[in-house]
Amino acid sequence: MAGSNYGTAFRISTFGESHGPGLGVVIDGCPAGIDFDEDFIQAELARRKPGQSRLVTQRKENDGVQILSGVFEGKTTGTPIGMVIYNEDQRSKDYGHIFDKFRPSHADYTFQAKYGIRDYRGGGRSSARETAARVAAGAVAQLLLRKVGVEIKSYVSQVGNITLPQDYADLDLDLIESNDVRCPDPATAALMEEEILAVRKDGDTIGGVVTGLIRGVPPGWGEPVFDKLHAELGKAMLSINACKGFEYGSGFAGVTLRGSQHNDGFYQDEEGRVRTHTNRSGGIQGGISNGEDIYFRVAFKPVATIIQDQTSINEDGETVIVSGKGRHDPCVLPRAVPIVDNMAALVLADFCLRARSGQW
Amino acid sequence: MAGSNYGTAFRISTFGESHGPGLGVVIDGCPAGIDFDEDFIQAELARRKPGQSRLVTQRKENDGVQILSGVFEGKTTGTPIGMVIYNEDQRSKDYGHIFDKFRPSHADYTFQAKYGIRDYRGGGRSSARETAARVAAGAVAQLLLRKVGVEIKSYVSQVGNITLPQDYADLDLDLIESNDVRCPDPATAALMEEEILAVRKDGDTIGGVVTGLIRGVPPGWGEPVFDKLHAELGKAMLSINACKGFEYGSGFAGVTLRGSQHNDGFYQDEEGRVRTHTNRSGGIQGGISNGEDIYFRVAFKPVATIIQDQTSINEDGETVIVSGKGRHDPCVLPRAVPIVDNMAALVLADFCLRARSGQW
Amino acid sequence: MAGSNYGTAFRISTFGESHGPGLGVVIDGCPAGIDFDEDFIQAELARRKPGQSRLVTQRKENDGVQILSGVFEGKTTGTPIGMVIYNEDQRSKDYGHIFDKFRPSHADYTFQAKYGIRDYRGGGRSSARETAARVAAGAVAQLLLRKVGVEIKSYVSQVGNITLPQDYADLDLDLIESNDVRCPDPATAALMEEEILAVRKDGDTIGGVVTGLIRGVPPGWGEPVFDKLHAELGKAMLSINACKGFEYGSGFAGVTLRGSQHNDGFYQDEEGRVRTHTNRSGGIQGGISNGEDIYFRVAFKPVATIIQDQTSINEDGETVIVSGKGRHDPCVLPRAVPIVDNMAALVLADFCLRARSGQW
Amino acid sequence: MAGSNYGTAFRISTFGESHGPGLGVVIDGCPAGIDFDEDFIQAELARRKPGQSRLVTQRKENDGVQILSGVFEGKTTGTPIGMVIYNEDQRSKDYGHIFDKFRPSHADYTFQAKYGIRDYRGGGRSSARETAARVAAGAVAQLLLRKVGVEIKSYVSQVGNITLPQDYADLDLDLIESNDVRCPDPATAALMEEEILAVRKDGDTIGGVVTGLIRGVPPGWGEPVFDKLHAELGKAMLSINACKGFEYGSGFAGVTLRGSQHNDGFYQDEEGRVRTHTNRSGGIQGGISNGEDIYFRVAFKPVATIIQDQTSINEDGETVIVSGKGRHDPCVLPRAVPIVDNMAALVLADFCLRARSGQW
Repeated sequence: MAGSNYGTAFRISTFGESHGPGLGVVIDGCPAGIDFDEDFIQAELARRKPGQSRLVTQRKENDGVQILSGVFEGKTTGTPIGMVIYNEDQRSKDYGHIFDKFRPSHADYTFQAKYGIRDYRGGGRSSARETAARVAAGAVAQLLLRKVGVEIKSYVSQVGNITLPQDYADLDLDLIESNDVRCPDPATAALMEEEILAVRKDGDTIGGVVTGLIRGVPPGWGEPVFDKLHAELGKAMLSINACKGFEYGSGFAGVTLRGSQHNDGFYQDEEGRVRTHTNRSGGIQGGISNGEDIYFRVAFKPVATIIQDQTSINEDGETVIVSGKGRHDPCVLPRAVPIVDNMAALVLADFCLRARSGQW
Repeated sequence: MAGSNYGTAFRISTFGESHGPGLGVVIDGCPAGIDFDEDFIQAELARRKPGQSRLVTQRKENDGVQILSGVFEGKTTGTPIGMVIYNEDQRSKDYGHIFDKFRPSHADYTFQAKYGIRDYRGGGRSSARETAARVAAGAVAQLLLRKVGVEIKSYVSQVGNITLPQDYADLDLDLIESNDVRCPDPATAALMEEEILAVRKDGDTIGGVVTGLIRGVPPGWGEPVFDKLHAELGKAMLSINACKGFEYGSGFAGVTLRGSQHNDGFYQDEEGRVRTHTNRSGGIQGGISNGEDIYFRVAFKPVATIIQDQTSINEDGETVIVSGKGRHDPCVLPRAVPIVDNMAALVLADFCLRARSGQW
Repeated sequence: MAGSNYGTAFRISTFGESHGPGLGVVIDGCPAGIDFDEDFIQAELARRKPGQSRLVTQRKENDGVQILSGVFEGKTTGTPIGMVIYNEDQRSKDYGHIFDKFRPSHADYTFQAKYGIRDYRGGGRSSARETAARVAAGAVAQLLLRKVGVEIKSYVSQVGNITLPQDYADLDLDLIESNDVRCPDPATAALMEEEILAVRKDGDTIGGVVTGLIRGVPPGWGEPVFDKLHAELGKAMLSINACKGFEYGSGFAGVTLRGSQHNDGFYQDEEGRVRTHTNRSGGIQGGISNGEDIYFRVAFKPVATIIQDQTSINEDGETVIVSGKGRHDPCVLPRAVPIVDNMAALVLADFCLRARSGQW
Repeated sequence: MAGSNYGTAFRISTFGESHGPGLGVVIDGCPAGIDFDEDFIQAELARRKPGQSRLVTQRKENDGVQILSGVFEGKTTGTPIGMVIYNEDQRSKDYGHIFDKFRPSHADYTFQAKYGIRDYRGGGRSSARETAARVAAGAVAQLLLRKVGVEIKSYVSQVGNITLPQDYADLDLDLIESNDVRCPDPATAALMEEEILAVRKDGDTIGGVVTGLIRGVPPGWGEPVFDKLHAELGKAMLSINACKGFEYGSGFAGVTLRGSQHNDGFYQDEEGRVRTHTNRSGGIQGGISNGEDIYFRVAFKPVATIIQDQTSINEDGETVIVSGKGRHDPCVLPRAVPIVDNMAALVLADFCLRARSGQW
């Protein structure tokens, strides 16, 4: 009934607080025989970790992952994979000033209301630090997806009012990692970087959008009527800290079109594959992949922690001033990219395995 | 592993095709002792059923629901509630012209690819007729939610390019049912109606947006980190036929704000309740309700069935003309409103019960 | 959180009370393309139904099943299969004499304590009538298992003190249906029948044991560490009304053996298959099938309803006399056989599909 | 679809192999505010650990548990509790002699058949070492159950042919820990000890029975129709390594009784509580607790590892001699007691929370 697990066939259970001893994840259901590339997992964690560039928080965490089980002689064994990341930079003393305060637009109040108790240090379980466990698990999911030719590429397509004008098809996605923003268009990336630094200088924060792209999914993944492929993708993205919206294919903009403009006509290509001329469906029809590219957009609000005084209340209902301190993210977007990638991987690995059980 | 069930504590399992003998739902986990208002369930089904106004398909279905179990002497007994709706207007002959064709932007191809077989009559399981079972179950969820003071009100806020200018707070939501569009502003409703009729005249279709509003949810509902309240709401909405996007609170528009503009400061009101001055959080913080109004927007694409010739292929890959016939919906939005209401009710009833098991 | 569903991949959700309008089941996860033999389903229900012989209750129910969905042109479509059995012989008036009484060793008191309300007519949800839905679903599971060569044969091996002396290997299992007891040894069956009729004459009841046998399961089914094949089999059997115990392989008797006597040595047979010389493991090692016969024993207590006056209390705690009436089962064993068969089928179909998702 | 998780509301996910870096468990769903008695958890692990007496394996493992999350200032916070136990005594070299052999009545062959790969060191995931994680989680469940007055006491009631003659009601259960066998009758315990030492001397092993007793469960726990209280208890027990059978209440012996002998008549006691005169129901009726003592018996086969040469085959199908080495358990019964206790605790904690969500 609690909600720290995800997936049906490729099932994960995460744990850990921002400032406790450590966090981690158990994967139950990863098939046997997958080459276990620990370096790749570590590399994905490095893309998410704090301190990686001047655009993100300067906290220091190595985020070294320890594999405790489920791997033998370099391959998965089909048994649960336990992974732990110890917290290094705990500095509990930093949080004495907010232990009884409800920071605006944080989860301090709701955790207190729900549980009657909370680990206030760094937001405890509500901290985005929790996503490290998701990234570790998602990286394993990516290892599985590689075997069936599925590739996931997300990138930052908007920061504040700065919007990437091109569609994914017109971009060189190999450039995503070429800059600190993770925007594949260098010119736009430069503008975004400028904006983020300006915002940081003001002690403020800014939101943005990540665009996700998934290639190589064969027709037939997704489980109607509730566990539609895009519905689970949406849930997965919305479960990421600071996410406020999700759309796929034509999205919100598509509502103004007429059916005659919006429909994707089918044709058969030269290899005999069923294809569509256009792809407003976003690679998914009736909740099932149709073999076309899957693309979607994920909205992230500005981070709630700002380096400005804000008025709020404490647990006793008294008015207090909340003052942000030092090492926060002015914009989560650059670090959100690997989280989006790996949450998508968790969704797809699960559907990959679910599709197998239903095929006769 | 299949996906026709939803919920953890208030769990439903739906079944049924558009043109089979019938469809229905089993609810497992509805608490005992709830007054079972069968008329209300039937009234909710009437809001969804075809033929209710000139804005929707003119197919005829009474959608009379039969209660098979779980209710005794007017009250729920805590045992599973089985409900069946028999299909009356089956007219299988209507579908001979499409039995081997893949209609553009329908799920014909993906169902064929996934299962190797499909009930092509009226879209079979992929037909929006399936949502009747959701509405029946959601109406029971609403009966449960009434007991804890939760109320759900959705309405049409956009049809094509016609957008309702007011926020929900500035609208009289008692007017939702005052017109066929289900838009609470009569002037905008009239424009929307005009647009829908124009589209219908062209044999075409148009999309739109439903805005959802939930009032009375106490602080503490929602289960981090994956089953956040808004993540499950998003999944539930995205699982509705034709849905392309979901946002809550400040949504996609909020990404352009700075944290200092976006944050919702806390205060204590005169009754000692913790409140926020603004509500860009949309009533949810860290995935848990904070007691404020929950609001969200759901995008629906234009219906794929149009009364125009379209080019597509059949199962053999041959190019064919698909010609829509008679009784389709020019715009799903009016009928989507009760579906949004009742899917939201299913999400909330589930979280209501989940919250109980965790409270000590 | 309620418990009227079973299975992970081949998942069923049952509903229905003894004297409500009807009962039924939804199967979510049955693969597409299975020949749907409705006559077989009906035949399995006939093996369970009341009135089939003089050894069982003389209540009349045809138990005709109606298929509402998931089947098209004689084959399963991969979508949920909804099935309903309407109750015909409701006779609510029969139950006026017990509506507020707690019958000894029935579930009247515990349902009242748990739910605060109960449908007292014929035991409501706690009636063994509920197993009709399991049999219908299990029969579909058997159709699936046929495709992979799995066969299930259960029979009565004990009634009261009358015990079948032979092991399953020394019996002609084609004789199970040759007598009303469903014991494959005619001589023992005659003794059992005599005992049951004697018990009936006394207005009393008697317990017994069903032995289950499963042939053709390939190595590799079962999911350690909690969902071991025998653990799920045990749960499934124990969930049947009146079941008090389960053992498999060497069972309780095996505890007196030494390891050197108990161990099953491996060898390779002429076709290269790995086999064991003996089979005290009961076809399961470490919770996973090893390809040998799976066998188990299920204990059923004497039916609680007897035609004798018993002292008990009513809802107000007052001492009352409970007097059994007419049409009860003197011994559930003959009717338990198809229930054991079909519960085993549900367990195996589920593991069959689960094994598929994990194989790479 | 994999099976290393248990529970619905109090849900655990375990991981770890016998000779990998470590094993552990994540508990998702433990309510907030429970006093976290780490010493008690460690004490329960000590009851299970090897080397605790001369009756068990002399392997050395401290089984020190590290708490990684979910606890703050001595109390549970409602967030997942991650626990790790590092393996100290790995000695992989010990296992070179069996790496490609299928030991009789072990899970070597079935793991190989299922996964195509296995960690052969000490049985890997199929080792009973895995139960350490269950004990750690079950100890937390016991902390929860303490708050509602539920107490679990299991003990050894049979070793080989030596049977404890008394019923639980005639025993002083405070004596369970007074001897190394964990049999509360000192005289019988001495005989059992003698038997175990004789078996050990022969390099052999012997089975036995654990009787479980649960006191203080209020009426209303258990979820019909599949998740009956005794069905889940049975599954939990059968999932323990070496378990071959489960019975509760009158069990297998009860099948020879007549209904008139077996039924438990109700009465109201002086405090107004509904009670039964006898308790052949074993505290459970219709799958729901009735407030009486819950008791059950669990059969364990003799351990498969013996210090004698046995004939078997290797992965290539060649006949080989398997020779047991040093440090094995001649009888699992003494160490099975805390495992039975803690598996029962996991079952009950889950039903405790599930009952809450259904009560209105």
